[in-house]
Amino acid sequence: MKTLIKNAVLLDMVENKPNIRKTDILINDKIIEKIDQNIENLNYENVIDANEMIVMPGLVNTHTHLAMSIFRGYKDDRKLMDWLENAIFPVEDKLRPDDIYWNSYLSCIEMIKSGTTTFNDMYFRMDKTIEAVENSGMRGVIAWSITDDSIRDKIERTREYFYKYNYKDSKIKIYVSAHAPYTCNPETIKLCVDLAKELNTGIHIHLSETTKEEEIISEKYGQTATEYLNDLDLFDVPVVLAHGIYISDSDLEILKNIRGGISHNPISNCKLSSGICNVTKLRKNGINVGIGTDGIGSTSTLDMFEEMKTAAYLQKINTMEPTSINAYEILKMATIEGAKVLGLDDEIGTVEVGKKADLIFIDNNKTHLYPENDICANLVYSANGADVDTVMIDGKIIMQDRKLLDIDEEKVKEKVDKIVKRLL
Amino acid sequence: MKTLIKNAVLLDMVENKPNIRKTDILINDKIIEKIDQNIENLNYENVIDANEMIVMPGLVNTHTHLAMSIFRGYKDDRKLMDWLENAIFPVEDKLRPDDIYWNSYLSCIEMIKSGTTTFNDMYFRMDKTIEAVENSGMRGVIAWSITDDSIRDKIERTREYFYKYNYKDSKIKIYVSAHAPYTCNPETIKLCVDLAKELNTGIHIHLSETTKEEEIISEKYGQTATEYLNDLDLFDVPVVLAHGIYISDSDLEILKNIRGGISHNPISNCKLSSGICNVTKLRKNGINVGIGTDGIGSTSTLDMFEEMKTAAYLQKINTMEPTSINAYEILKMATIEGAKVLGLDDEIGTVEVGKKADLIFIDNNKTHLYPENDICANLVYSANGADVDTVMIDGKIIMQDRKLLDIDEEKVKEKVDKIVKRLL
Repeated sequence: MKTLIKNAVLLDMVENKPNIRKTDILINDKIIEKIDQNIENLNYENVIDANEMIVMPGLVNTHTHLAMSIFRGYKDDRKLMDWLENAIFPVEDKLRPDDIYWNSYLSCIEMIKSGTTTFNDMYFRMDKTIEAVENSGMRGVIAWSITDDSIRDKIERTREYFYKYNYKDSKIKIYVSAHAPYTCNPETIKLCVDLAKELNTGIHIHLSETTKEEEIISEKYGQTATEYLNDLDLFDVPVVLAHGIYISDSDLEILKNIRGGISHNPISNCKLSSGICNVTKLRKNGINVGIGTDGIGSTSTLDMFEEMKTAAYLQKINTMEPTSINAYEILKMATIEGAKVLGLDDEIGTVEVGKKADLIFIDNNKTHLYPENDICANLVYSANGADVDTVMIDGKIIMQDRKLLDIDEEKVKEKVDKIVKRLL
Repeated sequence: MKTLIKNAVLLDMVENKPNIRKTDILINDKIIEKIDQNIENLNYENVIDANEMIVMPGLVNTHTHLAMSIFRGYKDDRKLMDWLENAIFPVEDKLRPDDIYWNSYLSCIEMIKSGTTTFNDMYFRMDKTIEAVENSGMRGVIAWSITDDSIRDKIERTREYFYKYNYKDSKIKIYVSAHAPYTCNPETIKLCVDLAKELNTGIHIHLSETTKEEEIISEKYGQTATEYLNDLDLFDVPVVLAHGIYISDSDLEILKNIRGGISHNPISNCKLSSGICNVTKLRKNGINVGIGTDGIGSTSTLDMFEEMKTAAYLQKINTMEPTSINAYEILKMATIEGAKVLGLDDEIGTVEVGKKADLIFIDNNKTHLYPENDICANLVYSANGADVDTVMIDGKIIMQDRKLLDIDEEKVKEKVDKIVKRLL
């Protein structure tokens, strides 16, 4: 099936500088076939008029825990350990497989409605998350969070799902997840590394989110968390390192050569008072930095437009230098650089011929996006998720005119409501 | 005329803890007459069903430069002086009175659509700003920015407009504006203080936005900016002090007893790398702190929901303590405490009998506000301006179902477009 998009203002995210032009885009099944002015309409099945719309790559959320959606606003504004031990953990223990399904589905809806087309998830019961993701139409990298307990079972599950979804054009990619240096002993890390090598896939891990974490690792092993993982050969495989706040200069030397990259989670890092990731320095050292939301609870929104704003503000305030990062660099982090972090940059992250058609359409006819002196600045500093009008994933329209085409949003909310009533 | 609001979930902002209840609200002309469950509908002219809506006080934006709306995204991500001298000042010199009108009108529309009902503005040609504000239906405190040049004329204009709008139930309140300590010599400050005393009104001034500003005052007068103003008796009158970032402990002793308060502008302070205002400390010392956006250019959105989020994030990251501020305190700053900063707390800032009916209705039936574990947390951390469904100011519906009732939004955008084409 072919879809023709007419009259788009395209921000393609291909080059190092913004390339914005009025153009038509032809999609052949899942793939972008042609980008040109005035593509003739040869009676294509789908023709979309993108007049007054900015078309750009779908946003890439590089670190999530989708099933945590029920925790929105739940016992907020607390100290981290109080919140975890007295709010989150007791409820997580009671989550049933079906809960994981509906909670993840709610997150998918929120992501789609705010312009995210690809995410990278770490949680338990990945089978139920995958089911929700497939029903939502999204693209995702998914991993079963591995800690020191029941490790053999989780390794086996990861292997099982890896082979189940390891086919051409699969929208689901399976990663191995070692939860974090402080929750995984050396044997666990080694098993995860071995599995990732065996499957030729990557590892998703939390790294250096708090000073406390670095202290624990230092006391236990006399190393930084990065050194600890390096000694266990974790960086032999592609990685997504979530947070990366307390990276020393010697850590930086180790991380310079990783495949994958770091997921910067600005809002979560603020809400939990974790600290500010030195994105500018990491990127100057050639490390890919994507943007992630983290799970609902430590963030309160999966809207990547909110994360983009906060990422920019934090760098400008951390460096006390307004030129430290600009709007286009932030957009790169949320698209092509995020795709690089997930090892998906051959498929997504830009709008160019041959790539998968993961596109979002921003309604530009809004007062708060007016006047339009700089489209990139408007997208980062003035827009929010509610400005996303249309979402296409893998060539298929998932949302149009803010209406979800194949998703029963009300049913998902009702289901989550029941879970909340039972558990919270 | 009476308006009956049925089935509201009311967040009244009256007490020190959230008071949320299902209720009806009866408005008599401009005033809230009754708040009660099941108010009988005696054939009132207007009946609004607020089912699935949170009703709360309209947001109060304590520091704006409305006429700067044309600068959205204009030469962003630059150093402050480069941006001011090479982007902003040359264009401001060319602004015509009519430009001020249309630019201010665009800002009013953006504010209304994101739930702000009252603002505090400082710019030049206040007559044209007032005209736009009156046509938009908003409530505002407005001042003609006074620096050392043409001071007599600006003093006279301020006096003229003060008397013009100094009548019972006026939605326009005139303040005196001394621009900033570094742009006003002692004689100018004294003239402003004398005028404010004569008119029995307040002063709106920038204070301690940057280290550079404090350096200039220190070199010139051997004092902090706060001490400089104190010696000139500025704090004898009610004040709105915009920014207040570099307040020393001895400054704090001076500011403890002011009437009015400080306008915290979190996004502008980030975008210009100015620094982080220690809101927690100021409030602990009994100083009212409201939230403001500053002008478009140094911020890029007049959406107070964005400012609320950023205000919370900055405090949590600045203090490295997630309990340093909570969602309800942030909501207070954006409503009743902002009203106190503007000396309007007898009239607005809470929803209670006898106060002016400045109300906003938040559409609660959104996936990103779901589940509803904590309404205050949802409003601050998950909502954005696009969730505002209905806006009432002074008892009059200005927006309903996101449609502006008496404002020709497209015309305003067209007019601003012409100004942008001429000047930028």
